[in-house]
Amino acid sequence: MAEEKSGAASITSTDVARLAGVSRATVSFVLNDTQGHRVSDGTRARVLAAAKDLGYVPHAAARSLRAGRSDLVLLPASVSAIGSLVSGWVDDLQSELDRHGYTTVLHTGRFPDAASAARAWAELRPAAVLAMNGDRLTPEAAGVLRRAGVRGLLAVAARPVDGVHTVAFDHGRIGEVAVEHLIARGRSRIGVVMPRERGLDAFGAPRLAGARRVAARHMAVVRPVELAYTRESATDLAARWEDLGLDAVFAFNDEYAALLMHALRSEGVAVPEEVAVVGCDDLVLAGLQQPPLTTVRLHLPAAATIADTLHALIEHGAAPAVPGVEAELVHRLSS
Amino acid sequence: MAEEKSGAASITSTDVARLAGVSRATVSFVLNDTQGHRVSDGTRARVLAAAKDLGYVPHAAARSLRAGRSDLVLLPASVSAIGSLVSGWVDDLQSELDRHGYTTVLHTGRFPDAASAARAWAELRPAAVLAMNGDRLTPEAAGVLRRAGVRGLLAVAARPVDGVHTVAFDHGRIGEVAVEHLIARGRSRIGVVMPRERGLDAFGAPRLAGARRVAARHMAVVRPVELAYTRESATDLAARWEDLGLDAVFAFNDEYAALLMHALRSEGVAVPEEVAVVGCDDLVLAGLQQPPLTTVRLHLPAAATIADTLHALIEHGAAPAVPGVEAELVHRLSS
Repeated sequence: MAEEKSGAASITSTDVARLAGVSRATVSFVLNDTQGHRVSDGTRARVLAAAKDLGYVPHAAARSLRAGRSDLVLLPASVSAIGSLVSGWVDDLQSELDRHGYTTVLHTGRFPDAASAARAWAELRPAAVLAMNGDRLTPEAAGVLRRAGVRGLLAVAARPVDGVHTVAFDHGRIGEVAVEHLIARGRSRIGVVMPRERGLDAFGAPRLAGARRVAARHMAVVRPVELAYTRESATDLAARWEDLGLDAVFAFNDEYAALLMHALRSEGVAVPEEVAVVGCDDLVLAGLQQPPLTTVRLHLPAAATIADTLHALIEHGAAPAVPGVEAELVHRLSS
Repeated sequence: MAEEKSGAASITSTDVARLAGVSRATVSFVLNDTQGHRVSDGTRARVLAAAKDLGYVPHAAARSLRAGRSDLVLLPASVSAIGSLVSGWVDDLQSELDRHGYTTVLHTGRFPDAASAARAWAELRPAAVLAMNGDRLTPEAAGVLRRAGVRGLLAVAARPVDGVHTVAFDHGRIGEVAVEHLIARGRSRIGVVMPRERGLDAFGAPRLAGARRVAARHMAVVRPVELAYTRESATDLAARWEDLGLDAVFAFNDEYAALLMHALRSEGVAVPEEVAVVGCDDLVLAGLQQPPLTTVRLHLPAAATIADTLHALIEHGAAPAVPGVEAELVHRLSS
């Protein structure tokens, strides 16, 4: 037996059944805690002892198949798109979900459309899907997930989606808040940084749209400027700065803003005198810049609130409304 | 039927079997592409059409149960521990694995010990587990995963582990490289920043041990200094700096280094004259600091190499050796 335990062969419920002297069905009843089947305490103890001796790990997927539920909460996101701002928040969320007995997994797949994505997520039969970028939970995608038995559907999204619990937030609001501030500071020719990094256009495009909405209500002009997150790209942009004729820039987030400010300084372009700069996320590094960086701070719902909401959706199919995300301008010396 | 399709009830293979007029077993043979069962082309087409009409999504878990394989590659890691350095690398890895037909999931669970962690990962029956922090794949943990049928076990680790394909890297090497440089620059009383943030002690402790190994070979002293990633904590540390009597600091990584340098400057402590500072990761922001930050750059194996290795382990149970991670000092003006 010691030989078998250390070998590479997989241990199955058949091995447990044989050692305990019971049927595979009984092993399944005991290990998956199936309701509505009576197993004596003695038999239960024998099965548990055999499973422990053999080092048998119950199969979450099998358990979810039989009991009709899973303990997975799936977050569709690439690691880099989560970024510095929300990585701590996602950690907190994971802890809160763990408290409720759920395991959080990040699904990093990229897909051509929302329905393909939903089918891939559905294959894992999660208990819930939390989409931080709500565009991906279209009504069609939500339908795919519902039919696959996913009970908790929660999205941070600009507009409510049928059958999805929505935390209201339009990323365009970030562009609006930044550009409202710049116009109030007397600026009128405003660049909006569009990151070249893949996966970030989903955030860049609505921010630009928000900036344009505000500019259209004033005598202001908005112009997108491309920037990759490299020294070379920033130096190249700063060298062309005078030709762009801009007196302000909303730099996508604090990291792109810090990179661009450094390059502008090296080119002798004065911040904020010649160009006012606004970032986003209010990272620690925003306050460390020279001059300290004006930024847009996002107030996310508490991780505990989101975890409670997901749990309620999974257990009861309904949950109280969650307050939306708020965007607040933090004024410092760069604007 | 339209009513059923838009409703919230889950669609099962039984519904598909009923619509196609075949048995559930036949549905399973067709949708899971089971080898060794003959199904006529007409029947196959009927099943596929019924599944499409009903919006039925095959169940990855069920498929892995029946076919004895899964297409999941599991990375145990919290989002914040992955950090800025490797998030782009993990994105690349995901793309490469996708090319091989695998879906990458990040498992964010935290566990009291390696065996508990392995049992939780094993429940998802992944095809492979890639541990960036190899301490978590102990021989016991590897045994749990092997017995659960996980074929690809790959770890970045200081020492080889039985049954685990290892990419050699000791995090202590980072501390060694940083402190070797500081000693060569004439420094002898060296602080090593220990981040207070949870999850980072797994990296901080070996870096400190590496620093101590090098200091012990010279007439140098190493002293751990705690720092949380907040302005308050950095200000507090900088205010006590003169009392610490240190002429150098290895600041864990570039972000902690930038935070500490800013606080030291505010306190009037000159870098590098009074304190030489070294970071780690060679992030874009390292070169933006004033003075530009000396750092340790890590050379990770190509994401494509890691993806190929995982695929070979899953398919063949063996793969060629992968070169280890190298740590290189990048000298700038902060030291």
